Amino acid sequence: MIPDFEVTILGNTSSIPVHGRNHTAQVVRFGQECLLLDCGEGTQIQMRKFKVKSSRISHIFISHLHGDHYLGLMGILSSYNLSKRTKALTIFGPKGLDEIITTQFRWSNTKLTYPLTFVETKPEGLNILLDHPRFTVHSFPLTHRLPTTGYLITEKEGLRNLRKEKLQEKRIPLAAIQSLRNGKDYEDENGNQFLVSDYTLPILPLRSYAYCSDTCFEPKLANYLKNPTLLYHESTFMEMDAARAVVTFHSTAKQAAEMANLLKAKSLLLGHFSSRYVELEEMLNEAKTVFAQSELSEEGKTYSILP
Amino acid sequence: MIPDFEVTILGNTSSIPVHGRNHTAQVVRFGQECLLLDCGEGTQIQMRKFKVKSSRISHIFISHLHGDHYLGLMGILSSYNLSKRTKALTIFGPKGLDEIITTQFRWSNTKLTYPLTFVETKPEGLNILLDHPRFTVHSFPLTHRLPTTGYLITEKEGLRNLRKEKLQEKRIPLAAIQSLRNGKDYEDENGNQFLVSDYTLPILPLRSYAYCSDTCFEPKLANYLKNPTLLYHESTFMEMDAARAVVTFHSTAKQAAEMANLLKAKSLLLGHFSSRYVELEEMLNEAKTVFAQSELSEEGKTYSILP
Repeated sequence: MIPDFEVTILGNTSSIPVHGRNHTAQVVRFGQECLLLDCGEGTQIQMRKFKVKSSRISHIFISHLHGDHYLGLMGILSSYNLSKRTKALTIFGPKGLDEIITTQFRWSNTKLTYPLTFVETKPEGLNILLDHPRFTVHSFPLTHRLPTTGYLITEKEGLRNLRKEKLQEKRIPLAAIQSLRNGKDYEDENGNQFLVSDYTLPILPLRSYAYCSDTCFEPKLANYLKNPTLLYHESTFMEMDAARAVVTFHSTAKQAAEMANLLKAKSLLLGHFSSRYVELEEMLNEAKTVFAQSELSEEGKTYSILP
Repeated sequence: MIPDFEVTILGNTSSIPVHGRNHTAQVVRFGQECLLLDCGEGTQIQMRKFKVKSSRISHIFISHLHGDHYLGLMGILSSYNLSKRTKALTIFGPKGLDEIITTQFRWSNTKLTYPLTFVETKPEGLNILLDHPRFTVHSFPLTHRLPTTGYLITEKEGLRNLRKEKLQEKRIPLAAIQSLRNGKDYEDENGNQFLVSDYTLPILPLRSYAYCSDTCFEPKLANYLKNPTLLYHESTFMEMDAARAVVTFHSTAKQAAEMANLLKAKSLLLGHFSSRYVELEEMLNEAKTVFAQSELSEEGKTYSILP
């Protein structure tokens, strides 16, 4: 059994929240661990609507300081306090977010009931932020009007499963079993060799989720993202508005699909749609002509990240 | 014809937004003028839901710096910018709000498309904030855990209507008509007197709306509020939770009703309900036993302020 790895979309729109669509926020669940990626205005209300338990969130990752990606943060932090949260919370975000939070808590004279840690992200390079036993989270740079980072969540190899028929053939020392499950060959004191390749089942490909919130088309992403299982890439515009994408440092659906090809992604999730598009089917078609495994992110929908 | 004077409720809840209820925000319309009183998270979404044109708002009044009263402000200011607003906007609010706004605009590198003025409110005394030809807005102190002001919107006397039968009796000089309509007696060069009491219709009582966002029961409000036509008074708790109201500097429904009696209000609107109450009928009954003209504020509903 591999742990569940999935993302629930809480908001899929950019700029002005219209057509019943909300600002960017996503909850990534890996096993028991819940991470919040960006937090637009109304995220706590969306969580309640879609029955996402906000209390389970342990880490929040903010990509950049445009309001549509963080203005829901203070509301969630305040509600945690009102519900007397005690579980620690860590927020990763760009320089400035700490000042924005502490300024508001200072004026509201708020004493938090839970330990809150703020970690400033670096706007360049691939940087590890979280080293969990079963996954890692890295930041990587995006190219936007403000310092912006994407986030990459990568599954780690778990314990290997042993071949049952081999266990029946001969007695295997406990130390060998432990070594093999950890993916290491073992030799006992008599020189008997137990090879991982003989004794364990092949492992499934490790899964990853790459989150590119706001960015222009940026081929340098290939330096950081290799074969992501699921690539979320912003798709603010369609090709007919490509000039607008250039000026605002955003991408078109076609560019998002080209990026999925370039990175050899297994599948692509589009989001951050401009309010100028009421219907989104044509946008999806635009992406699909370039990258067949494209999908529109829908609010309230959960996307499994499968090997 | 007297100008429309009405308030539309966008949010009626305190603390954690549950039971489909939202944080405090109200739009007061006086004729063509729209004022926003407080601005909880999601106010711009509520405005869209209830077809309140946010572009018409000229002045925003924030009562205090608890998140449930202002966290929607940055979202509205940002959306104004995205929609290229040019009309001037003035925000009235307590010390600290200016720093909160400017810190965020500094980090997001925002250049506003419209003139924004911030006016700091004083936490004591009755202070005039806006002197409109047809109404005034004053701040007055509330008693809460943070410096908090309520807002009082008072109709000014308009031009008087002349008695038609008097106009037919004899020729009245134009200067006399102007004077009488402005409520002043007039004497012409021949010593003929034109008395307001003779020539004009009785004026309707002037209307007022008193907004008490967050406060404990505070008899000193009688120093500032006399016979308000409509009193909005917070009613976070019911009497069974009166101890909690004391600790948190909030009021019960019964206390709100007692305040309506004390101030000789014409009617009372209750709001800022705690998330602990799912149904609110009992809360309304509690108020009505003390002050019959009590009503629950409902999101999306518009309350006319009639003489």
